[in-house]
Amino acid sequence: MILRTTLDWGRVMQYVGKQLAAVACTSVALTVLVHGYDFRAVALPNFPISLYAASLGIFLGFRNNSAYDRWWEARNIWGTVVNASRTLVRQSIVFGDREFAKEMASLLIAFVHSLRLHLRRQDPTEELKRILSEEDERYVLPFANRPNAILTRLGLWVCDGHKQGLYGENRLVALEATLARLTDCLGGCERIKNTPMIRQYDYIPKVLVYGLIAVLPFALVANLGWYTAPVAVVVSFLFLSLDTIGRNVEAPFESTINDIPMTALSTAIEIDLLQMLGEREGLPEPVQPVEGILY
Amino acid sequence: MILRTTLDWGRVMQYVGKQLAAVACTSVALTVLVHGYDFRAVALPNFPISLYAASLGIFLGFRNNSAYDRWWEARNIWGTVVNASRTLVRQSIVFGDREFAKEMASLLIAFVHSLRLHLRRQDPTEELKRILSEEDERYVLPFANRPNAILTRLGLWVCDGHKQGLYGENRLVALEATLARLTDCLGGCERIKNTPMIRQYDYIPKVLVYGLIAVLPFALVANLGWYTAPVAVVVSFLFLSLDTIGRNVEAPFESTINDIPMTALSTAIEIDLLQMLGEREGLPEPVQPVEGILY
Amino acid sequence: MILRTTLDWGRVMQYVGKQLAAVACTSVALTVLVHGYDFRAVALPNFPISLYAASLGIFLGFRNNSAYDRWWEARNIWGTVVNASRTLVRQSIVFGDREFAKEMASLLIAFVHSLRLHLRRQDPTEELKRILSEEDERYVLPFANRPNAILTRLGLWVCDGHKQGLYGENRLVALEATLARLTDCLGGCERIKNTPMIRQYDYIPKVLVYGLIAVLPFALVANLGWYTAPVAVVVSFLFLSLDTIGRNVEAPFESTINDIPMTALSTAIEIDLLQMLGEREGLPEPVQPVEGILY
Amino acid sequence: MILRTTLDWGRVMQYVGKQLAAVACTSVALTVLVHGYDFRAVALPNFPISLYAASLGIFLGFRNNSAYDRWWEARNIWGTVVNASRTLVRQSIVFGDREFAKEMASLLIAFVHSLRLHLRRQDPTEELKRILSEEDERYVLPFANRPNAILTRLGLWVCDGHKQGLYGENRLVALEATLARLTDCLGGCERIKNTPMIRQYDYIPKVLVYGLIAVLPFALVANLGWYTAPVAVVVSFLFLSLDTIGRNVEAPFESTINDIPMTALSTAIEIDLLQMLGEREGLPEPVQPVEGILY
Amino acid sequence: MILRTTLDWGRVMQYVGKQLAAVACTSVALTVLVHGYDFRAVALPNFPISLYAASLGIFLGFRNNSAYDRWWEARNIWGTVVNASRTLVRQSIVFGDREFAKEMASLLIAFVHSLRLHLRRQDPTEELKRILSEEDERYVLPFANRPNAILTRLGLWVCDGHKQGLYGENRLVALEATLARLTDCLGGCERIKNTPMIRQYDYIPKVLVYGLIAVLPFALVANLGWYTAPVAVVVSFLFLSLDTIGRNVEAPFESTINDIPMTALSTAIEIDLLQMLGEREGLPEPVQPVEGILY
Repeated sequence: MILRTTLDWGRVMQYVGKQLAAVACTSVALTVLVHGYDFRAVALPNFPISLYAASLGIFLGFRNNSAYDRWWEARNIWGTVVNASRTLVRQSIVFGDREFAKEMASLLIAFVHSLRLHLRRQDPTEELKRILSEEDERYVLPFANRPNAILTRLGLWVCDGHKQGLYGENRLVALEATLARLTDCLGGCERIKNTPMIRQYDYIPKVLVYGLIAVLPFALVANLGWYTAPVAVVVSFLFLSLDTIGRNVEAPFESTINDIPMTALSTAIEIDLLQMLGEREGLPEPVQPVEGILY
Repeated sequence: MILRTTLDWGRVMQYVGKQLAAVACTSVALTVLVHGYDFRAVALPNFPISLYAASLGIFLGFRNNSAYDRWWEARNIWGTVVNASRTLVRQSIVFGDREFAKEMASLLIAFVHSLRLHLRRQDPTEELKRILSEEDERYVLPFANRPNAILTRLGLWVCDGHKQGLYGENRLVALEATLARLTDCLGGCERIKNTPMIRQYDYIPKVLVYGLIAVLPFALVANLGWYTAPVAVVVSFLFLSLDTIGRNVEAPFESTINDIPMTALSTAIEIDLLQMLGEREGLPEPVQPVEGILY
Repeated sequence: MILRTTLDWGRVMQYVGKQLAAVACTSVALTVLVHGYDFRAVALPNFPISLYAASLGIFLGFRNNSAYDRWWEARNIWGTVVNASRTLVRQSIVFGDREFAKEMASLLIAFVHSLRLHLRRQDPTEELKRILSEEDERYVLPFANRPNAILTRLGLWVCDGHKQGLYGENRLVALEATLARLTDCLGGCERIKNTPMIRQYDYIPKVLVYGLIAVLPFALVANLGWYTAPVAVVVSFLFLSLDTIGRNVEAPFESTINDIPMTALSTAIEIDLLQMLGEREGLPEPVQPVEGILY
Repeated sequence: MILRTTLDWGRVMQYVGKQLAAVACTSVALTVLVHGYDFRAVALPNFPISLYAASLGIFLGFRNNSAYDRWWEARNIWGTVVNASRTLVRQSIVFGDREFAKEMASLLIAFVHSLRLHLRRQDPTEELKRILSEEDERYVLPFANRPNAILTRLGLWVCDGHKQGLYGENRLVALEATLARLTDCLGGCERIKNTPMIRQYDYIPKVLVYGLIAVLPFALVANLGWYTAPVAVVVSFLFLSLDTIGRNVEAPFESTINDIPMTALSTAIEIDLLQMLGEREGLPEPVQPVEGILY
Repeated sequence: MILRTTLDWGRVMQYVGKQLAAVACTSVALTVLVHGYDFRAVALPNFPISLYAASLGIFLGFRNNSAYDRWWEARNIWGTVVNASRTLVRQSIVFGDREFAKEMASLLIAFVHSLRLHLRRQDPTEELKRILSEEDERYVLPFANRPNAILTRLGLWVCDGHKQGLYGENRLVALEATLARLTDCLGGCERIKNTPMIRQYDYIPKVLVYGLIAVLPFALVANLGWYTAPVAVVVSFLFLSLDTIGRNVEAPFESTINDIPMTALSTAIEIDLLQMLGEREGLPEPVQPVEGILY
């Protein structure tokens, strides 16, 4: 997630620099042809460019909307992970006792980290070894879907607490309901990760934007003369950035600079839960942004 | 669901090729008439095309929005099927015991597969025979609505577990509540399947788009000369694709390439649930995309 | 609800035929005046028609959006009626017994049919007599709001089951919760039925659309000559259909062809619930579409 | 809430008549200046009016959307008041007995009426005296927030029913949960009432619309001649109505003709609840619309 | 939150005054150059300004929408804080007794104030000392996240009430569920506070708006002559205000004039809760708006 509040032109140019350079060159070449050599046949002064651009703008607006909705939904799901984790630890303290809550919290912290690594397709073994008891670790590691395995394990602990007489059936059900919320979070993240934006909404606008910027110098050159290059570049930048932002934002779990900052969030949850249990020392450090970007 | 990240021009042309060819031919013919034979009466240079196109663009934008919302809602419902299945199996383990959970999981797997086949109007007999015990199968098959029958059957199992003293009334109610979530999923899928997009939003834009591409060459030919054909084709492509994408996406359970990937999802649920019960062998293989398309 | 996939031009002309004819006649008359008799004073070539149409388009887009949302919300509420009915019958079987479930199902079927007739302002006496026992019927008929009366009656049955020891307090509360869902459905339908679309959003666009199509021939005639009539008709059709569709869709319980298909849905629920109770004969027939329209 | 289906031009003119008259007069004066005296310097033929109007249209579209969402949310909250009231009375009958339900219903009716009067900043003393027992009245009146006080009072009754052995803890909690729904309704209404639309979204569009209609005659007069006045009036009407409707709708609890019809709704709830308890006589009359407007 | 209903031009000029002055100066200078000295080369009469502005308008519309959604979500979360607080105190009275409710209410009031100070990054020590008992204060202060610590503390009280036999397991779970709602509110506020609007949606429109207002005088000067300055200023004001409002609204917890009025809301909750417990004296004063702005 980008935190810096100024535009990093270097990074912008990485995305759209080549295209803008191409537009500029074409424009200059055309201007020379048309206004230098008076070779007017290449100009296309009556292209219905407003019509094309307005319809394309509506398309891009819709696409940006949907992309942002995906990103915000992903962020909301991680918000729910934060809330349900805090709730589950408080419930463990309130319904059970501090010892029970400690066991729950350690599994919960493992769940959060392994959810992050699961979504980023990274190996959770090391993290799980750091957090879990050997027994829990041996239970969890053989599963393909580790976050789900940890939820099952949490369920077994919850069941145990009831069997040992820590609490009655009512509280057992309430604890399970919080696990169900976490199951929904896991499923929600997997859904966004595995369901790409409908592909047609992705490459049709791209094709149409590239069509527009290709035709732009030809359409402008007759009227704008030597101003063709700067004007075509500015208009191309508008459409290219509308297209590129959507593409960047629509996939929030792909380890890019637009990722949901899962490393920061999962570390923050770990600190929170440990503090709730009264730990004051040995807490991990909060994750800091690197060059204005939080991962 | 399409996974490949590049545009398959072959498939695109299947949808809009004939129309674009017609536009191109008309344009060339008109250009010859107007600029070759100077038969200017067929040109229509003052057609208020921006006005028409802008309003049509708003209409198409609204329609794409609604179509995409239907698709995303369908995907969300299947996401809830995933979540509720995992929750139900975990609850069966936590509230009951592993034996009970196995019975539940087998019915649940049958529910997921029969939901898929129900929505695709395919015969579930074979799948049900593979998964269910003979007794369950005999119960389920006579029903018209098999997924609902399986939910009733699950309810009877849940009732049984309570009567055999596995758990108290509280947990019985909590298990039933998860069945109610699955009932909502079934009903939600049927709603989207059986309620087509309001027909007027479907064919009025189609008529208007075809009206636009029919008039386009006549409106452009006077000013654009020999550029009429390429320009008319590009603009027609913009509007035809806006119209076609909506139509493809609005029906997410019709066994097309834009379907929710129900085969993949139901197989993934089967693997997940069996793993949760400790099965490590004999699991089905995850479904792989075929030519970039996941079914 | 319209199911046929082709445009019924006859019905379209019923809605907008007269207006289009008027536009055509005015256009022809104006063309004769302006281009035949050279009476140019009636032409209005500089009317800012794009400006007017674009703003009107945004207005109509907003209105279609809201109208469709009302329709889809109504459809969703009826979807919830389906889901909650199935859930209630399954709960009755699981929490109580088959005998109890039969009594519940018969009242529930009466609820669904009386909800339909309540929304269509039709007399439910006959339907209720067909479905209910004499005692239930005598209870329900005196009420002004029959669907709500049936829900109260269902509540009394639920209470009875608990008093007779069929189930404990927990399950009693869970059954009541499903009745509360049905109460929300009833209230939601009444809300949409009794709250018309904000009237200003209804007739201001109508006035503005009629203003546009009245001025259109005058604005086009100077430039388009004999093409004025067809062009004005096509553009008028675009705006008239944008306006008319919204008006048709915004009231989903008015016994028009755009109604939520409540007859079909309530019959389907009846079949479903009877099947869940093991009935295989004497089930009503599913409602079939008439001339492509499902009621 | 406006029910009449035709446009009341008198009321419309109340809102925008003066502005339209000013536009008309300016236009006529300008036409005389420009076309009579050939004083062309006042004309402004190249004002980029489409650009200005299109952007303003997007702004107004957004604002109308948000205003309508507020109105519809307010209507939904009152719909929930209807549903939760019916549910609470049914629960009181089902969980408790008819005597208990009567006490609950009387407080509930007082809640609904005092919510209406609370939102309209009117004195509820008279209504409360009509409905409540003397003891309840003495409890409620000293509070600043009477609806909330009545909810607390309802809670005390619910508590009482449990202490007297009418029902167990489970049903007590379920009754409280319905009170929590009503608390949410109260809070939701207060939120909409006390949080005006973000002021910038309110007066910036107003300023911009007035800017547009002020400049309109100057921009049109050179080209339209004596048609300037009618055209400027029609376009001004379009933008003024877009602006005015939003302003009217965004505040749904201000005792205007666009109010949520709270008098009608609270009376309807009173009738409903009394009928549910078997009352057939002495019910209040439903509120009728006055000159097509329901309050 | 701004309450005054008129536009404060002074404040507006603070935001956009310098930019408008720059536009005015450039315009005048250009007019002198072009129309005084006939130096036409600087004019840019064919810049495709409608195309650029329309696309930019769609972008800004999307951004304003998202910004407003964030603001309204923040307001809704605080509305839920109000509702859940009232519900929790009523539950404490109904499920427990008045003594217990007093303890709960005092912690709850501390939660609300510390949530406000937490979001504004202010020190809560003083407020907490004013409200909490010494024991509670000693528990809460060492935590990094004080609002969450108070929720844990509330959980311990809830647990205590159960252990002392005030209520059974059912009511314990119901009280905990209300704490979970407050946990969600805390997490929701932190999410909005810590997740800025996606930065690209923030500075790309800014760059594009500044690009537009920079090019505007050059594009208008050839046609508008001495009217260039006022026209450019008005159009620039439209786009600058569209851009600025979004930026102001998107961060609702930053102690600006567009803040959610948290001081007013938390004081109102304190008054409400104390009144519910029968306190009539010593209540704090409601917060009043200062110069039309409520903090």
